[in-house]
Amino acid sequence: MSIEAEIIYRYFSAFGAGEAVTLGVGDDAAVLRLPPEHELVVSTDTQVAGHHFFPDAFPEDIAYRAVATAASDLAAMAASPLSMTLALTLPEIDDLWLHSFSQGLGHASATLKLPLVGGDLTRGPLTLSVTVMGTVPSGRCVRRDGARAGDLLGVTGTLGDAACALAWLAGELPDRQTLSEQDESFLNARFFQPTPRFEWQDWLLENAHAAMDISDGLLLDARRLAEASGLGVHINPDQLPLSLTTRQRGLKEATRWALTGGDDYELAIAFPPTVAIPSGITVVGEFTDAHGLHCPGYEAEIIGFDHFAAREPHE
Amino acid sequence: MSIEAEIIYRYFSAFGAGEAVTLGVGDDAAVLRLPPEHELVVSTDTQVAGHHFFPDAFPEDIAYRAVATAASDLAAMAASPLSMTLALTLPEIDDLWLHSFSQGLGHASATLKLPLVGGDLTRGPLTLSVTVMGTVPSGRCVRRDGARAGDLLGVTGTLGDAACALAWLAGELPDRQTLSEQDESFLNARFFQPTPRFEWQDWLLENAHAAMDISDGLLLDARRLAEASGLGVHINPDQLPLSLTTRQRGLKEATRWALTGGDDYELAIAFPPTVAIPSGITVVGEFTDAHGLHCPGYEAEIIGFDHFAAREPHE
Repeated sequence: MSIEAEIIYRYFSAFGAGEAVTLGVGDDAAVLRLPPEHELVVSTDTQVAGHHFFPDAFPEDIAYRAVATAASDLAAMAASPLSMTLALTLPEIDDLWLHSFSQGLGHASATLKLPLVGGDLTRGPLTLSVTVMGTVPSGRCVRRDGARAGDLLGVTGTLGDAACALAWLAGELPDRQTLSEQDESFLNARFFQPTPRFEWQDWLLENAHAAMDISDGLLLDARRLAEASGLGVHINPDQLPLSLTTRQRGLKEATRWALTGGDDYELAIAFPPTVAIPSGITVVGEFTDAHGLHCPGYEAEIIGFDHFAAREPHE
Repeated sequence: MSIEAEIIYRYFSAFGAGEAVTLGVGDDAAVLRLPPEHELVVSTDTQVAGHHFFPDAFPEDIAYRAVATAASDLAAMAASPLSMTLALTLPEIDDLWLHSFSQGLGHASATLKLPLVGGDLTRGPLTLSVTVMGTVPSGRCVRRDGARAGDLLGVTGTLGDAACALAWLAGELPDRQTLSEQDESFLNARFFQPTPRFEWQDWLLENAHAAMDISDGLLLDARRLAEASGLGVHINPDQLPLSLTTRQRGLKEATRWALTGGDDYELAIAFPPTVAIPSGITVVGEFTDAHGLHCPGYEAEIIGFDHFAAREPHE
């Protein structure tokens, strides 16, 4: 057995079992069963040290977050999780690092119901590429391009927490000393353990015209959703769901984080105004025939970040 | 649209269409249809510049080879190609490089019937991670662990060509000047455009007890196949299928390339001796109850290379 294969077996083979897994890690490829009358949903996300995460972040956090952010794309399609593969590039074999990394990977695999069925381990600069697979009833996936004029724009959870966490981790919060232990653990969890919103799958299948996950901030992603549907969107900045933790940093800052901060991985959903609004979804705007993005008072903020532009992690 | 998304659209969106593709690049995830009564087969392969390919290789060759080597894992399971995703990490946006890369990617996508349904583009050291998906009739994939004592070991194509190509590219062939133009283009093709052996799918499904692709050399991979099946294997070094090009470099060297050189991506197949041997498959050995790998005269050569060990590309 090669060193590569040995490492994969030692650290990762425990995460490969699952109801849908006919054949897991260890052969040329894995084999998976899909439920009848379902389609396959697939998405790939890459995280590079120094670009997408702090190189000195805890390896378990790096692992969990990489899986969770990839899985969020499945939730955004109203898909159920099926499995994942991981391409891991490491500068060197560091058993402590791999042990810690495997803890986060195992936690994510179990929590998000994504058995790890394949992977590749190569030597090079620290990079993770996660491919997640899911299933959705045939013909029923929730795309980005189905919103209609008059649809409401709803979001799950609270927005801006991850941006607040980043500011906190970067030492940029003016009142850092006043964060309670609860605030700190809340912010840590919101950034490092985002929650793919699989719990909305049935509701989405039933009610949504369109959806996507919010990775680059509400303004940018709502505009993407609108544009994919050939519409405009009007956002009411006074209606944003904000956590107590971010509101205590000041309403203005909290609102800005919610509008322009990324990394929350909540869902932005277009659904008709006739649908009863469930607890857990906040209506923050409306889709319009008139193109463009409107958010009174925040006209200057509609530029989100771009992984290829200046988004370097804070030191 | 982000720069990242713009680049993906400009260069790669043309390769995303296919019969099985319900929804391609551009949403949170892609959606694919599997034929009824089929399972999903999935494999991920990563290639790092400087480890898996020469950093100055032609980008179209890098792209084609990355897809073909990943696809070979599908062929080794007797699966049909369905689609692929690509995680591409680039140090900088270089339009000429991307143009050339996209030529190879498009060529591979079309030739190997793998529409590109998703991808991620990030900035960092040049790394490609390809996830290939395929389908196989439910319960019928050809695994590594099904060989039986008395089965023949057959291989497709010719072996050792890629190793010869590497020696040639590294300037290590003593008679480099005597390579004909045909030899050069044959060796180039064998290394940079390996052929996943999808044409053997039906035959494998019908006749094979076990199979895998030969990426690390016949000795190492035949041993893996035998060990996965709890068997030993006896290889006859006089029966190896060698190309005219490698034989002309000397039988001894050609045999060594065939036994220990990797990168050919032919199939090693275990099948019962009662099966008629088709043209295109060469019997090179036999699986035995006695454990271990035997290859008379080549006892010292059974150590293959390891991506994590000393396998650096030749300068």
